[in-house]
Amino acid sequence: MKSKYRYENAPEKGSWKEPIYSIIFEADTAAGKSFDLGLILVIVASVLVVMLDSVQSLSTTYHNTFHFMEWAFTILFTIEYLLRIACVREKKKYALSFFGIIDLIAVLPTYLTMFLPGGQFLLVIRSLRLLRIFRILKLVQYLSEAELLMEAFRESQRKIVVFLFAVLNIVIILGSLMYVVENENPDFTSIPESIYWAITTITTVGYGDIVPTTPLGHVIASIIMITGFSIIAVPTGIVTHSIIRVSSRTTGPQVFEQEDSGSSGTCNNCGLDTHDSDASYCKRCGTKL
Amino acid sequence: MKSKYRYENAPEKGSWKEPIYSIIFEADTAAGKSFDLGLILVIVASVLVVMLDSVQSLSTTYHNTFHFMEWAFTILFTIEYLLRIACVREKKKYALSFFGIIDLIAVLPTYLTMFLPGGQFLLVIRSLRLLRIFRILKLVQYLSEAELLMEAFRESQRKIVVFLFAVLNIVIILGSLMYVVENENPDFTSIPESIYWAITTITTVGYGDIVPTTPLGHVIASIIMITGFSIIAVPTGIVTHSIIRVSSRTTGPQVFEQEDSGSSGTCNNCGLDTHDSDASYCKRCGTKL
Amino acid sequence: MKSKYRYENAPEKGSWKEPIYSIIFEADTAAGKSFDLGLILVIVASVLVVMLDSVQSLSTTYHNTFHFMEWAFTILFTIEYLLRIACVREKKKYALSFFGIIDLIAVLPTYLTMFLPGGQFLLVIRSLRLLRIFRILKLVQYLSEAELLMEAFRESQRKIVVFLFAVLNIVIILGSLMYVVENENPDFTSIPESIYWAITTITTVGYGDIVPTTPLGHVIASIIMITGFSIIAVPTGIVTHSIIRVSSRTTGPQVFEQEDSGSSGTCNNCGLDTHDSDASYCKRCGTKL
Amino acid sequence: MKSKYRYENAPEKGSWKEPIYSIIFEADTAAGKSFDLGLILVIVASVLVVMLDSVQSLSTTYHNTFHFMEWAFTILFTIEYLLRIACVREKKKYALSFFGIIDLIAVLPTYLTMFLPGGQFLLVIRSLRLLRIFRILKLVQYLSEAELLMEAFRESQRKIVVFLFAVLNIVIILGSLMYVVENENPDFTSIPESIYWAITTITTVGYGDIVPTTPLGHVIASIIMITGFSIIAVPTGIVTHSIIRVSSRTTGPQVFEQEDSGSSGTCNNCGLDTHDSDASYCKRCGTKL
Repeated sequence: MKSKYRYENAPEKGSWKEPIYSIIFEADTAAGKSFDLGLILVIVASVLVVMLDSVQSLSTTYHNTFHFMEWAFTILFTIEYLLRIACVREKKKYALSFFGIIDLIAVLPTYLTMFLPGGQFLLVIRSLRLLRIFRILKLVQYLSEAELLMEAFRESQRKIVVFLFAVLNIVIILGSLMYVVENENPDFTSIPESIYWAITTITTVGYGDIVPTTPLGHVIASIIMITGFSIIAVPTGIVTHSIIRVSSRTTGPQVFEQEDSGSSGTCNNCGLDTHDSDASYCKRCGTKL
Repeated sequence: MKSKYRYENAPEKGSWKEPIYSIIFEADTAAGKSFDLGLILVIVASVLVVMLDSVQSLSTTYHNTFHFMEWAFTILFTIEYLLRIACVREKKKYALSFFGIIDLIAVLPTYLTMFLPGGQFLLVIRSLRLLRIFRILKLVQYLSEAELLMEAFRESQRKIVVFLFAVLNIVIILGSLMYVVENENPDFTSIPESIYWAITTITTVGYGDIVPTTPLGHVIASIIMITGFSIIAVPTGIVTHSIIRVSSRTTGPQVFEQEDSGSSGTCNNCGLDTHDSDASYCKRCGTKL
Repeated sequence: MKSKYRYENAPEKGSWKEPIYSIIFEADTAAGKSFDLGLILVIVASVLVVMLDSVQSLSTTYHNTFHFMEWAFTILFTIEYLLRIACVREKKKYALSFFGIIDLIAVLPTYLTMFLPGGQFLLVIRSLRLLRIFRILKLVQYLSEAELLMEAFRESQRKIVVFLFAVLNIVIILGSLMYVVENENPDFTSIPESIYWAITTITTVGYGDIVPTTPLGHVIASIIMITGFSIIAVPTGIVTHSIIRVSSRTTGPQVFEQEDSGSSGTCNNCGLDTHDSDASYCKRCGTKL
Repeated sequence: MKSKYRYENAPEKGSWKEPIYSIIFEADTAAGKSFDLGLILVIVASVLVVMLDSVQSLSTTYHNTFHFMEWAFTILFTIEYLLRIACVREKKKYALSFFGIIDLIAVLPTYLTMFLPGGQFLLVIRSLRLLRIFRILKLVQYLSEAELLMEAFRESQRKIVVFLFAVLNIVIILGSLMYVVENENPDFTSIPESIYWAITTITTVGYGDIVPTTPLGHVIASIIMITGFSIIAVPTGIVTHSIIRVSSRTTGPQVFEQEDSGSSGTCNNCGLDTHDSDASYCKRCGTKL
């Protein structure tokens, strides 16, 4: 879909924009590949700089270096963004596309820091730009895998909404009950806090910063744990089912049969079409296929 | 099923109860939809008030406001409950239905606080009333998904009982063993406490408030962890199996075949449309398809 | 299998042992059912006494009561054990059967405490006797579910051995690496301790009593976590696969078809037997079933 | 594959190397089996010595014994390695094979300690040599199970790359967001640290050494937990799907059909025995079954 969009949105042939477009939007030519590879390295570097800038010990020593690099990367990305806008035929279509928005918010935080200090840490959003990496690594195959996963999710969406709604109710009710039961416990300061504890427990994360201390509290906690341990199965079942279903739909029912050759499909005599791929004779009437 | 019940239990046509019934019980008309939407907002607000009331800092400042709102919501819900009772033809049937009971216990705790302070936190049970939300969001589809999940559970019920019984035995025996092994450890004060620890471990929650310290204790803990890590697979396998089975029963064996071409779909004589893809004759009336 | 054994091992008809046998070994008669129910209550009570005896505050107050009840239960179970031995035709067969061994070790610890104090906590092994509960609750169905789960396990045994061996190697190597990396950290005192930490991490238990503090330690810990998060899928996949396979083998390919009623099973004309349970006419030839 | 390699790489018949080769490379003869069994015991012993050497209390008491044993094992393994090199026809092929490399790095660390103290703990890598254990325990079956698991992984490789990439992005972005939100919290010292926390949370490990304390931090943490709890399903679904697919490919679609009754099993004409259960004619030669 994305690749289709690119071709439709390419500039007119012969225009000065064409070579730029083919370099920054496509990965078919050597120049395009080098550009993408370089871009990914720059993105990784820029994300690393943001991360390292947050480490106290490094930040005090290299503050100016980091500050300079941050601006350098931002200006680079801004130029790239403007070039992308300039190149495409329908500017708005690109600007509002998934990658168009990411490309924009990858540069905005630096400019924001002029008014709002601290915002530079939001620059890690640039890591989303790494999604472009799939362009280089045999794009289509990975994209189709991702699409399959997305479709499996979309398909099981309603079941998951129902499931999360059930989890939400369990967590609110048992969390509040726990607040009443453990009212002597300084860990359970309020119902929202108790619900937070119930979430850490039902998801089996279990930080241990908030723990029940009364016997009844232990019993309720055990119930939440066993519930979480058991219902962790539900999304798994749903998603497994969807993945099997979606991938059998797109690639044929490989799960259930050896891959069909299709040639020996239907019997000319009785019309039976559920033959094995290695069948030479109809299994019902014996006619040669 | 629920929607069927509603229509059966509707008041006589022309009665003054009819418009009220259609507003508070049905979501087909604009007024009914607005009522449901408003109701959900009020429920969310009332649950939020209960939650915020439990936060110390807010409770001291806004105590009177919260107290007033709690009573306002309760009186609102009481009026709504009485109207529901008044509207339906068979009062008892509604009062004992799932939603009837929830509607009742959503108002009781406030009245209880007149005699029993602290009970107001049980008002979060009101969150169960949010189940009505499915009425607005294309009710039937979500309900059928929920029913599918419930049926998958019901089907795997016995396997899960066997599984939980096995977990219970592992937890009791290994927990007690741990109590004997870690008898020097102040964390393991009693067998029930040790069993609680074993549950936090086998479910992979792992709070860390109780931890073994002896080498033998570490070995037993490792066995429990590996057991938990491995048997987490069992409910998953059971539920996945059930979901596949149940959903292939209701919607046809989509998992195994591409979606039916529909050619052999409907019987011209009796209209039955749930034939197998290889059926040549209607299985109900015997007409050639 | 168990029930078959019981009948084979029953005493001769007319012997004085017969009514005792039918009461304590069988659950078909009213007396047998009452006996089983009573036995289960006594087992639960005896396990509870052992548990409560370990709670310091209760133990000091009720020490004599607990001590007396423990001996009372043990004598009761000893009599029951001797009666069982006396009743069956082949004493050795029962004594060496699964339940025979459990019945024995359920009484031994109390006698051991005469020589070895502290052993009474091992009495919780009595909880295994609760397995008899399945005798009352429609025995056969639950047993067959349990057998199905056991067979699914047996079938996937070798895959799970391979999997656990892989986990063992990962845990030994990464745990030791962590010991070298975190050699400044007082938590990682030795390689066995580091392996214990690696197990708590890979199984996603994460007590937090031992935590890495160096940046490199965090990286290795992250690798172990992601590994655990990903390979938790492997036993699930194996067991799910086995459960689907085993249950489709024993009960027919229910996964794929509605449950057969059997009545409309086979067509008298063409012999096709894969009809739906609601079919009245053969779907191939149209003959009335 | 491995066994094939061994035979190809065997020394000429009649050479003095032949008996040595058959002992140390093969497990078919009694001598070969004893050698392999002895080797495994020695490997286990050597790994245990390394582990125990790291325990402070034991290391001070038995330092010289451990030191001596380490060198003894290393010399033994070195001799074995040289013998293996000497025996095989193509030395390079063995030296670069999987087991050849492991055999080498199992001895290197001891020699390294002469220059670089502390390296001896890397000797646990010897545990990898235990993979030879599969040679003794009915090698082929286990190897084929392992290969099936490997193939299931290889097949789902791309889906898992996409999945891990998504997890990486979630963890980077939410971890950084948490750093900004919890900037008052001394636990969240830097973005890398926050990302480490996000990993412990999304994998449901939850050490509890770093915990959010602000309300907004709790909300974000809850989102990460629920995400982790839900997406734990994705690798499971992928791997389950692959295992079902791969094993149905190798062993036939056992998942979907009952084991053949055998009646329509074998064709009397051509001997083919892989017919469907509803086949009336041999699908290869058309003979009536």
